[in-house]
Amino acid sequence: MNSMKINHPYIIAHQDRFLEELFQLLRIPSVSADSKYKDDVFRTADFLKAKLMEAGAENIKIMPTKGYPVVYADKIIDESKPTVLVYGHYDVQPPDPLDLWLTPPFEPTIRNGKIFARGACDDKGQMYMHIKVLETLLQTNALSCNIKFIIEGEEEIGSDNLESFINENKELLKADVVLISDTGIISNETPSITVGLRGLSYLEVAITGPKRDLHSGLYGGAVANPINVLCEMIASLKDKNQKITIPHFYDEVIELNQEERALMNQAPFVLEEYKNALDIEEVYGEYGYTTLERVAIRPTLDVNGIWGGYTGEGAKTVLPSKAFAKISMRLVPNQSSAKITQLFSDYFKSIAPKGVKVELTPHHGGEPAITPTNTKAYKAASLAFETTWGKTPIPMREGGSIPIVSLFERKLGIKTLLLGFGLDEDAIHSPNESFRISNFFKGIETIVEFYKEFSKNS
Amino acid sequence: MNSMKINHPYIIAHQDRFLEELFQLLRIPSVSADSKYKDDVFRTADFLKAKLMEAGAENIKIMPTKGYPVVYADKIIDESKPTVLVYGHYDVQPPDPLDLWLTPPFEPTIRNGKIFARGACDDKGQMYMHIKVLETLLQTNALSCNIKFIIEGEEEIGSDNLESFINENKELLKADVVLISDTGIISNETPSITVGLRGLSYLEVAITGPKRDLHSGLYGGAVANPINVLCEMIASLKDKNQKITIPHFYDEVIELNQEERALMNQAPFVLEEYKNALDIEEVYGEYGYTTLERVAIRPTLDVNGIWGGYTGEGAKTVLPSKAFAKISMRLVPNQSSAKITQLFSDYFKSIAPKGVKVELTPHHGGEPAITPTNTKAYKAASLAFETTWGKTPIPMREGGSIPIVSLFERKLGIKTLLLGFGLDEDAIHSPNESFRISNFFKGIETIVEFYKEFSKNS
Repeated sequence: MNSMKINHPYIIAHQDRFLEELFQLLRIPSVSADSKYKDDVFRTADFLKAKLMEAGAENIKIMPTKGYPVVYADKIIDESKPTVLVYGHYDVQPPDPLDLWLTPPFEPTIRNGKIFARGACDDKGQMYMHIKVLETLLQTNALSCNIKFIIEGEEEIGSDNLESFINENKELLKADVVLISDTGIISNETPSITVGLRGLSYLEVAITGPKRDLHSGLYGGAVANPINVLCEMIASLKDKNQKITIPHFYDEVIELNQEERALMNQAPFVLEEYKNALDIEEVYGEYGYTTLERVAIRPTLDVNGIWGGYTGEGAKTVLPSKAFAKISMRLVPNQSSAKITQLFSDYFKSIAPKGVKVELTPHHGGEPAITPTNTKAYKAASLAFETTWGKTPIPMREGGSIPIVSLFERKLGIKTLLLGFGLDEDAIHSPNESFRISNFFKGIETIVEFYKEFSKNS
Repeated sequence: MNSMKINHPYIIAHQDRFLEELFQLLRIPSVSADSKYKDDVFRTADFLKAKLMEAGAENIKIMPTKGYPVVYADKIIDESKPTVLVYGHYDVQPPDPLDLWLTPPFEPTIRNGKIFARGACDDKGQMYMHIKVLETLLQTNALSCNIKFIIEGEEEIGSDNLESFINENKELLKADVVLISDTGIISNETPSITVGLRGLSYLEVAITGPKRDLHSGLYGGAVANPINVLCEMIASLKDKNQKITIPHFYDEVIELNQEERALMNQAPFVLEEYKNALDIEEVYGEYGYTTLERVAIRPTLDVNGIWGGYTGEGAKTVLPSKAFAKISMRLVPNQSSAKITQLFSDYFKSIAPKGVKVELTPHHGGEPAITPTNTKAYKAASLAFETTWGKTPIPMREGGSIPIVSLFERKLGIKTLLLGFGLDEDAIHSPNESFRISNFFKGIETIVEFYKEFSKNS
C-alpha cells in the first residue's frame, strides 16, 4: 500500500484547482518582518477572505490589529456541537539569502513532486489545507461540528498583537480545541504528532567602540574593536561543554528522568543519515545529551545573524565603530521568555569591557508549550492517521516555537492539537523552502478524517 | 608666527589652480578593491600622465602590470647629480559605509579649511603635492637634482604587481633615496617624520557548518552554528591580557629596552583627549604596554569585517550555513608577513571544531619597516621642517603599513624617507576622510625646501 495515495473522491476530483489556489497564495510576498512588503501582507488577508467565502465559510471579517489584521471566519452548524478553532498564519519569513534560491521564492515551482516557494510549508501550504478541508466537508455534507478560523499575519514576527486580539474577542473565539497545522511529521514512513514545542527569546545587540570608523593601523591594538569584543562576548555565552553560561539560565528547566529520556531516544533516528544530509562531519551541542534530546528538551543559544565593518570585496583595514548580532534562545518548559530575555540582557551588559557601549533590543519571544495526548482531539487525530496513513502516529517533541499555543491556553483555557504534515526536507525559514504535493493532499484528507472522528462521540 | 602660513611666491600665486587640479583627481573614484571601479582606476592613470606632462616631467609612460598600471615619469637634469625616486599611489580605499559620509566621497567639498573626499589625504592629496613640487621647482628654476616618479594603482590592495614591476625595471628606477608622502605628522604644532611602520597580514576566513541554512528551532543546539563557532574561534585568538595566542606569533618581535620605551613615551600624548576624541570610556589593548607603545611597537590582531546569517530588518530564526570574517594583523620589525599568515592559518584551522569546515583566503600582506635617521635625506627633511614650520620634527614610529618600503630596500637597495603631512583627524580609510588645505600647501612648500637642502652638498 502506498500510504501517500489519496482516496477521497472530492479531493481527487478537485486537486488541480486546490493546487492552483495555493500557488496564487504563494505568489503574494507576505513578509511581515520587512515593511517594504506591507501592501502584500494586507493583500494576502484579502485573498484569504475571498477564498474562505468560496469555501463556504460565514461571518468572514478582516479584523484590524495594531499591526497586520487577523482573518476570522466560521461555520457554525449547531451551537450544541463541539467547536474546533483553526489557527494559521498567512505571513512568511524573509526569503534571504535570495541568491541561494534555485527558483524565485515567490514564483512557486514544482520539482520532484515538491512545491518550492517561501511559505510553501510554513505556513501557507499547511494553513490553506484547512480552507480546502472546509470546502470538502461542506461539499460532501460531512461537516458535523462547528469550525472557526483565525488566520493571522504576524506569526513570523512574534504575534505581538495576538494577545490583545484574543483578549478583545474571547466570546467569538470560544471553542473546544485549537487545531494548528504548522509542524511536521518525522517522515512519511513514520507519521507523528507534535506534543511539545520550545519557546523563544530573541534579541538584537549592538556594540559601539570608538564613535567613528578608524584606521586599524593607527588605532589597532589600542582601542576596543567592537567586532572582536562582540565575538568575545558571544563566545563567553557558552562554556567548553556548550552549556550556556548566563547565570540562572537553567534554573527553571525541567530535567527529564532516565526513563523519559530513554523513551525519547527510541524515536527513529540514524546519526549517519542526519550528518550526511547536512554534510557535516560531526554533530555539535551540549555535552551529555543526544541529538534528539538537544533539539527537544534542551534550551539553546544561536546567533542568527552578525555584521560589522567592511564586508565588501577585497581588503579594507578598518577598525569599525559598531558591530551587531541577532541572538536567539530556544526555551523548554518551564522557562519564561521574558525572564530569559532579562537574564540575557543583564549578563550581556555585565561582560562588556569598559571600552565599548552595549545596546540591546528584544525582538518577539514566545513561551514553550506541551500539548496533551489524553484528549478527544488527540485520539481523533491518531485514529485519522491510522485511516489515512495506515500507521499510528508517534507523539513527538519538536524544537521549534509556536508561541500562540501557550497563549490560547492561558487566555482561552483551550488546549491545542498540533496536526502538521511538514517534513524535515521542507527547509522552512531557509532558501528553497518546499512542501510535498502529496503531503498537502494527504494533510487535507487526514484533517477531513480527523473531523469525522472528532465529531463521532459528540 | 603662524607656522601654517605659506611664504613661497609661486605656490601662493598658483594655489587656486593647484587645488582645482587636486579636486579633479579626487572626483575619479579609483577604488582598486572593487572591480566595478575598474575603468575609473585606469582613467586616473591617464589623468596623472596629463598632469605630469603639464608640470614639466619627461619620459612619461603608463606602464602596464598584471593589474593596474604604474605611472612613470622623470626629470633628469644631470646624471651626476643625486636622484630622488618619488613613490605614491593613485588608488583609494572603498568609501563604505556610504551613509556615514556628510558629503559624497567623490565630490570633494571644503568645510572648516579641510578637503573632504575619499583619497583627500591617502594618497591622492599627498601624492599630488609632488607633482606640484616639480612644477614649482621647474618654473622657478630651482631644480638641482634628478626626480623620478612611480605612482601605482594597487597600494590599497597590497601592491601585488609592484615587486615584479621593480624587478623588471631596476635600471629605470635607480635612485639615491625613495621619497614617500603617505604618512602623517603628530600635529601641526608638533611636526614629525615617520621612521617606523608596521607590516600587515590580512586573511578572509569562511566557516561552513551545515550545507544549507537551517531552522534554528529544529536544529539549534544539535548542529554547529558557524557564527557561534566563528565568534569562539576569533575570541580564542587572544587571551584575557589581549595577548595574541597564535603559537610563535611573538617569536620574532624585537622587544625595546626600558630606555627606548621611555623615550617613545615622551611623545606628546594626553590620554583624556584621546579618549574624548573617540568617545570611549577606556582604551583597550595588550596588558603591560601604553597606548603609544600599543600602536607602534606591538603587533595586533583586528577583525575588520564580519558577516553571516540574517542581517535584515526584524527577526529570522535561521541557523546559517556560513559565516565570514576579514581579519588583519599589524606586524612589527622583525616579523614576516608570509610567516605570520602561515602561523595564523595553521592555528585557525587547528582550533575549528569537527562540525565545521574552514576556508582561508590570504589578502595582501606587507613587511614592517624602519627607516634611518642618519641619512642625508632625513637631515634635509629635518632642516626643511625647521625652515617651513619653525620646528625640528620628532622622529616617530607609526602604526600603519606601507609594504613597499621594505620592497624598495630589498629589491633596489634604496632607503626610504617618509615625508608625510597627514593629521590624525584626516580619518583615512574612514567615512569623511579629509586633508587640511593648509597641510596640502605646507607640504608642497616643505618638499620644495627638502630638495633645496638635499641638493646643497651634492
